[in-house]
Amino acid sequence: MQSAARVVIVGGGFAGLWAARALRRAPADITLIDRCNHHLFQPLLYQVATAGLAAPSIAAPLRHILRAQRNVTVRLGEVTDIDPAGRVVRVHGERCPYDYLLVASGVSHAYFGHEEWARHAPGLKTLADALHMRARFLSAFEHAENSDSADVARDWLTFVIVGGGPTGVELAGTLAEIARHTLKREFRRIDPRTARVLLVEAGERILPAFSPDLSASARRQLERLGVTVRTRAPVTAISATRVGIGAEVVRARTVIWAAGVAASSLGRSLGVPLDRAGRVLVHPDLSVPGHPEIFVAGDLAAINGPHGPVPGVAPAAKQMGMHAAAAIRARLAGQPSAPFRYRHQGLLATIGRMAAVVDLGRVRLRGLPAWWFWLLVHVYFLIGYRNRLVVLIDWADAYWTYRRGARIIVGATRPPP
Amino acid sequence: MQSAARVVIVGGGFAGLWAARALRRAPADITLIDRCNHHLFQPLLYQVATAGLAAPSIAAPLRHILRAQRNVTVRLGEVTDIDPAGRVVRVHGERCPYDYLLVASGVSHAYFGHEEWARHAPGLKTLADALHMRARFLSAFEHAENSDSADVARDWLTFVIVGGGPTGVELAGTLAEIARHTLKREFRRIDPRTARVLLVEAGERILPAFSPDLSASARRQLERLGVTVRTRAPVTAISATRVGIGAEVVRARTVIWAAGVAASSLGRSLGVPLDRAGRVLVHPDLSVPGHPEIFVAGDLAAINGPHGPVPGVAPAAKQMGMHAAAAIRARLAGQPSAPFRYRHQGLLATIGRMAAVVDLGRVRLRGLPAWWFWLLVHVYFLIGYRNRLVVLIDWADAYWTYRRGARIIVGATRPPP
Repeated sequence: MQSAARVVIVGGGFAGLWAARALRRAPADITLIDRCNHHLFQPLLYQVATAGLAAPSIAAPLRHILRAQRNVTVRLGEVTDIDPAGRVVRVHGERCPYDYLLVASGVSHAYFGHEEWARHAPGLKTLADALHMRARFLSAFEHAENSDSADVARDWLTFVIVGGGPTGVELAGTLAEIARHTLKREFRRIDPRTARVLLVEAGERILPAFSPDLSASARRQLERLGVTVRTRAPVTAISATRVGIGAEVVRARTVIWAAGVAASSLGRSLGVPLDRAGRVLVHPDLSVPGHPEIFVAGDLAAINGPHGPVPGVAPAAKQMGMHAAAAIRARLAGQPSAPFRYRHQGLLATIGRMAAVVDLGRVRLRGLPAWWFWLLVHVYFLIGYRNRLVVLIDWADAYWTYRRGARIIVGATRPPP
Repeated sequence: MQSAARVVIVGGGFAGLWAARALRRAPADITLIDRCNHHLFQPLLYQVATAGLAAPSIAAPLRHILRAQRNVTVRLGEVTDIDPAGRVVRVHGERCPYDYLLVASGVSHAYFGHEEWARHAPGLKTLADALHMRARFLSAFEHAENSDSADVARDWLTFVIVGGGPTGVELAGTLAEIARHTLKREFRRIDPRTARVLLVEAGERILPAFSPDLSASARRQLERLGVTVRTRAPVTAISATRVGIGAEVVRARTVIWAAGVAASSLGRSLGVPLDRAGRVLVHPDLSVPGHPEIFVAGDLAAINGPHGPVPGVAPAAKQMGMHAAAAIRARLAGQPSAPFRYRHQGLLATIGRMAAVVDLGRVRLRGLPAWWFWLLVHVYFLIGYRNRLVVLIDWADAYWTYRRGARIIVGATRPPP
């Protein structure tokens, strides 16, 4: 009997988890390693950050998802290093050897060389980020209410979101809705409806991956919600109380970073060519130059599809994960691996209540139909019926009452800085 | 026109919130101050700690609850000091004057002079405590799975709960169920069913406030779930890897503190007589000796009911809060205030699936009927229909599948200490 090949998968996101599942009948002994104990439904992370959903509603324990797949061992830990020559990854210094390796450790946010901005302008990649952001923006209204100075209160009520991609658009629209509707009547000294939400984008238009007419529609929908959209507006400085936008200085005490991503540092430890953002330039079959036994999938992989680079979205990560699994299965069977073919499934971004844009190529939706489409797709793809049910209840509640079910700041508050 | 009296309420728990609501028609200008932005449904906190419920399911923003009551201002902040002579409380150093004051800042856990135990044996009073405890016990199974030493794995799979009151009983029963059922089949190197759960109580019996036959029943129900119950077993030492129980030393890497409470330090700043636990010895009308304008309610107040001291439970806190509000209304109307009369509504403790004890005085329930009674009461008293619905879904899911909906460790893991 042939002994099972050792397959190590780094990362339990869409790429890593879908790869592990696609290997369920392979003669492989799989180890899935993740820093977190859960798979995260990242497309709804902004809703945890904006107090619409509880953290457990968009996360499921990796062990639980994979409990019945007996050829997978889930290991909670951080991969600190990869040694391609020795065919070993290190987890907290411990050696974990492999015959085949899939690196799917994704991306985190990048500040384009301004790492000092990180403390003033948190980004959104993990549940911890989301809970931190939630506490920050909820506390801003509290600080405004507590402030004796009208100027300081106004600074606390100014929110700047940097980056006009889907995450920035979603955060800006939701924050505007919360200020206008959710918090209405709840404060005594401030009027939350006077809050300003600025969405700042360095490029020509927001949602640049969408068609220009949908970008323009998204902008109008945001403006209807009360968001000020600024394009061709590069951020030049961020401090605790100010944001430099071009030559102008805006006073704001809450800045959110939704602008740039940088690939996981594990890409570097492979010793292979990377693109500017640190992503691994993979072969057509997603393997790595010089190492046919190493694959990269998901946001960490740089590869072109039929219409330019494959975008960093969940469907692309799933497709790559499944393709890498198929390539490993082919290798195990002594067959050649096929090139990865990206099937574009469209782009979606939600803006707020009944406001969204959907770009399916020939079909483009905006406003209410786009919003319904977005909603159905996201509920459908959530893992676990319990999560689907709870998310639907939270959304229905938010829809009818404008309430947000998770307006909880965990821990005691401190006086404003 | 008479100008409104300034009423300051410290604490948005059951006592403070019910007092604020009971003053809704009073000619008063009320400020409710809390360190947290939410009212917490403390009776279900252990379910957040044991991954059964998400934090937002048992908490609601104080501002939201009180939004329509125009004579209340909610202030997020920590009262650092009370000056009864100057009739002022200080919030982060800022002065907040009052004509009437209600102190309802509750209790936190106490280690009986062994404050060094706090880092090894966390307690459970706030949502932050609950999320910390959740991460601790979920990580214990992960550390056991990752360990190369059978001895170390066994230490990680030993859980000691100190204190046989309702919280200790609830935590012990739930942990045993999780180890036996929820995590079954999810690990590859350890068998979670071999986990040991020890409930350690210094006194004669667990649940000492209940009748002796219910204590005995609770013990039997716990033992059926696999919990080892040790009574007359005082804890003498706690370190990262060991617990001293009487003369014996038990190796365990997860210790949970459910043993003692100490009153909020604000009681001391009133300069009036306190009991041994630091609670304020109040007058029969809940006012404070020498200060008819200051009231204390909830867990911080020490007062006797018809059958001994009024217990530190939610119904007692609500009753005291409403009584203090009535006393303030009486003062405002120039009338004398009545003495507080505690109406005992019974004691409930849940143990696990279909296991509970209910002591209503003449009526005593155990097992399945007690569990149903407990469930209905707790869902009924939860604030907000959304929370009720979501909690019911989570419980139904847990009941049918043994799953726990909130098995999420937020943040990255570190290697074991």
